[in-house]
Amino acid sequence: MKKRKPTILVTNDDGITSRGIKALVEVASSFGEVYVVAPDKPQSGMGHAITVHSGINVSHYHFEGAKAAFSCTGTPADCVKLAIYHLLKEKPDICLSGINHGSNASLNVIYSGTMSAALEGSLEGIPSAGISLCNNHVDRDLTTAIKATESIVEMMIHNKPDNNLCLNINVPDILLKDVKGIKFCRQSKGNWHEFYEVHKDEEGNEFLWLTGKFENLEKREKDTDLWALGNGYVSVVPINADMTAFTELDRIKDWKVKW
Amino acid sequence: MKKRKPTILVTNDDGITSRGIKALVEVASSFGEVYVVAPDKPQSGMGHAITVHSGINVSHYHFEGAKAAFSCTGTPADCVKLAIYHLLKEKPDICLSGINHGSNASLNVIYSGTMSAALEGSLEGIPSAGISLCNNHVDRDLTTAIKATESIVEMMIHNKPDNNLCLNINVPDILLKDVKGIKFCRQSKGNWHEFYEVHKDEEGNEFLWLTGKFENLEKREKDTDLWALGNGYVSVVPINADMTAFTELDRIKDWKVKW
Repeated sequence: MKKRKPTILVTNDDGITSRGIKALVEVASSFGEVYVVAPDKPQSGMGHAITVHSGINVSHYHFEGAKAAFSCTGTPADCVKLAIYHLLKEKPDICLSGINHGSNASLNVIYSGTMSAALEGSLEGIPSAGISLCNNHVDRDLTTAIKATESIVEMMIHNKPDNNLCLNINVPDILLKDVKGIKFCRQSKGNWHEFYEVHKDEEGNEFLWLTGKFENLEKREKDTDLWALGNGYVSVVPINADMTAFTELDRIKDWKVKW
Repeated sequence: MKKRKPTILVTNDDGITSRGIKALVEVASSFGEVYVVAPDKPQSGMGHAITVHSGINVSHYHFEGAKAAFSCTGTPADCVKLAIYHLLKEKPDICLSGINHGSNASLNVIYSGTMSAALEGSLEGIPSAGISLCNNHVDRDLTTAIKATESIVEMMIHNKPDNNLCLNINVPDILLKDVKGIKFCRQSKGNWHEFYEVHKDEEGNEFLWLTGKFENLEKREKDTDLWALGNGYVSVVPINADMTAFTELDRIKDWKVKW
């Protein structure tokens, strides 16, 4: 980390007008010089999508507390690529994504636009973090999440992390006074059991709406993000883009292969 | 695997009309009963996106060689969820995604709609595989990819894999006679160096088009998918949804945390 004030790239997946990114910019601007590049509309559930079949439009945006801000028609991952390769003059020192309205703990990380943006930052050699409050309501009180973000950003600046660090930070939806602290942990195994509601549009055409119920598949383990969140801690999981299943790799090496 | 003919769910990210999925259905139907649920339009680069802000329309589709087929307005991951939770009467025995027109080796896996569909299958307890030919041209000869797919599906049926197995299979763009075999390997570290082309639409509005150049960051390692592909092998990487960076987790556990 350079000695001057750090430059901080801020993005999210709920869109540039969301309350979460406003709070994040406010926190970030107390630590450094803030640049915002964020989607012009909500992009939740976008996973690590990038725009390859169309162009991306970019607009200047006035964002209180930011040195410069841009909204665009791209995905969260696009925003970070755009910032680094096109919009900013220098590579930022830190990349922050959020504050997301809804949990990105456990399996949710793979569906998360918030975390794909943070991961994209780390792939470009920028220590990054995505911050999510475990409550989907956009008008939810952000006090606990803001305090957690302050702690995390301070921690990132002072501990001089590796350039490829990417933190998945989830904040329990509890009062600040009830938070026990921050826990470093691993991603819990979990799954969504889905259900499709059948609706009809005005012209009578059927469409399906995805709903689901999440299940923690490691309820007894105490080193996971879901355990931390359920026990009053802010969870911090370092993630990376290596999806290799090494245990499975060992197992299938003995497979008979016909070629 | 049950003794009756296996049921095979087929999907992709290039859309239900693509040449790749046609070839995949043809291979799959020689092994079992095939059901197709695929996007109605190309969905490349969609990562693990799911549709949470709108409904999904589903249509019956006539697909030669399939027992039943549906196209939908959802993403590749949506297709697998839809198949399992809404469209099919029974959980399929195997889920196959592809044949993708373009590499999903190395870092490409995180941007890949093809692989998100396969991963979704494995999360639902169905041994799954995504198959990609390392050439982006949709009219490219598929002979080598078809032979690789046959070998892989036979391998999956005969080796009775774990239900959560997900294979990322990439096929080198070389003549069948030049293929040396199949290599089980890990995902190579890589990165995209991006570049944005600036264009103007008919009304003079500027838009940006993403292009990039891929770099293998582990050129000397011989146990990676990129090494296998570069040396005449079909690469097979088992993947999972656990993104925890365990090495980083060990490292940051000593961080000073202020709360």
